[in-house]
Amino acid sequence: MIDVALLGTGGMLPLPERFLTSLLVRKCGRMLLIDCGESTQVTMKMLGWGFKNIDVICFTHFHADHISGLPGLLLTLGNSDRTQPLTIVGPKGIEKIVGGLRLIAPELPYDINFIELENNIEEFTVGGFALKALKVDHRITCYGYSLEVARCGKFFPEKAERLGIPKPMWSQLQKGETVENNGIVYTAKDVLGEPRRGVKLCYCTDTRPTEAMRDFFYGADLLIYEGIYGEDEKLPKAEKYKHSLFSEAARIAKAADVRELWLTHYSPSMPEPELFLDNARAIFPNTYIGEDRKTREIKFAEE
Amino acid sequence: MIDVALLGTGGMLPLPERFLTSLLVRKCGRMLLIDCGESTQVTMKMLGWGFKNIDVICFTHFHADHISGLPGLLLTLGNSDRTQPLTIVGPKGIEKIVGGLRLIAPELPYDINFIELENNIEEFTVGGFALKALKVDHRITCYGYSLEVARCGKFFPEKAERLGIPKPMWSQLQKGETVENNGIVYTAKDVLGEPRRGVKLCYCTDTRPTEAMRDFFYGADLLIYEGIYGEDEKLPKAEKYKHSLFSEAARIAKAADVRELWLTHYSPSMPEPELFLDNARAIFPNTYIGEDRKTREIKFAEE
Repeated sequence: MIDVALLGTGGMLPLPERFLTSLLVRKCGRMLLIDCGESTQVTMKMLGWGFKNIDVICFTHFHADHISGLPGLLLTLGNSDRTQPLTIVGPKGIEKIVGGLRLIAPELPYDINFIELENNIEEFTVGGFALKALKVDHRITCYGYSLEVARCGKFFPEKAERLGIPKPMWSQLQKGETVENNGIVYTAKDVLGEPRRGVKLCYCTDTRPTEAMRDFFYGADLLIYEGIYGEDEKLPKAEKYKHSLFSEAARIAKAADVRELWLTHYSPSMPEPELFLDNARAIFPNTYIGEDRKTREIKFAEE
Repeated sequence: MIDVALLGTGGMLPLPERFLTSLLVRKCGRMLLIDCGESTQVTMKMLGWGFKNIDVICFTHFHADHISGLPGLLLTLGNSDRTQPLTIVGPKGIEKIVGGLRLIAPELPYDINFIELENNIEEFTVGGFALKALKVDHRITCYGYSLEVARCGKFFPEKAERLGIPKPMWSQLQKGETVENNGIVYTAKDVLGEPRRGVKLCYCTDTRPTEAMRDFFYGADLLIYEGIYGEDEKLPKAEKYKHSLFSEAARIAKAADVRELWLTHYSPSMPEPELFLDNARAIFPNTYIGEDRKTREIKFAEE
């Protein structure tokens, strides 16, 4: 139902063997990108999903390692003959920041729309993606994101037949639309069962753990969450710079009852994050080390 | 006398196997960088000369592929505990452009000074580097750079002895300083021969060939010049976007009587520039394909 690619796993600065943390999501051929640090377009090129179909770019916050790749990517999108508008989402002030960066990318063949986030929780749909944003706890305003794909109830053809609804109208009802037959209006509810579990993906980096995260991430198929350091001894440093440890990520994943956790946004001082994986798995066994261009297809569950 | 590293050889956008065109020069342990596109700090990291000793960053022009890596590099310099001021050189307007980019890198532990270029030819010394800049012919204002290390004449100890200058004063005279002995003032001219050939390095990209280049590059030990396309058939495209072909680079190198030419700033559409090297060598045999992190030590000539 959606394809997910973790484009990079680093924090602070791009390294020869590690790109900066960024996430690409693909749904029905259209794409959404979260964060775009320096070199993100290079790892995107290596991934091979193309550039042209990115409709939305969300930013967690304005630290350079999450946004410095934007001007280059905007130009590359322009060179891919894109003309459809692009939507950029981010904390309040994003339009001004992008204006500054666009001094070196002033001419683009497409328009940019902005969605500026202000509240603690925001909910909106853009480019076909149903998103929520949660204000988290970093040194500057920062948001985590949740993307959900809803799934309607199961279709019961016997109900439609019993109601005498002509077959050509069935697909409209299955899409949630309303149809009229012989003067009677039918809704999806008449032929569908209870809404089923959809898919939910969460991405959150550059923050201390917060209380609100448990509800916000609750039941996610996949949570991608930062683990700047693997060792618990580095808690004071994580607290000072407002980041999270492996063990903290795992505790949040457990509390929010997510299905799977990927760690990311590793400190450049941690060349081998896998050495500390057990510090997370002891708390939440279904934790994995995020790797550059690690991909996952998240499907609706079989019934 | 100077060490030169061509950090990347690409134009337009960084590629998985090719960084953007940029040059690092090292002299007496201090460094000067020309151009800083997205990912330049990654290839610098791979090169291993460090970041901290960069005192000067020059920009040819404001197209993103030459400047988009600046905010990330400024932060990396800050994280290397740099506190000495940095000088940024570029076409008029550079301070405003850097101001826009610094919206995502507002806090740095060092000051930035600016030198804005306005005239067709400018000459200045900054951070111990004697530089000249030549306005060239691109779609926006663009400069080529020339860096020269002068060399004083040969020292004749017999002259110093004949004049009765005490030995401890000799090294001052060799540095071009003035000394006084028994009421008589001596200058370097009294003990040195004619000034000798120093070293000269030129870097020029994103331009059509111009008349003024011959004098500007004249006699350079190394000319690094763009070759966006290898084939002469692409002249109309090079003219349209104001770039130069391999053969044009070679003609300039020949006319300016340089010692060696390195090509760079290859189009992403040209994955194997070496296939077209003969198009340049037929005109200027001492042409080489620039490669990412190709280095060269340029010394004073043996006498």
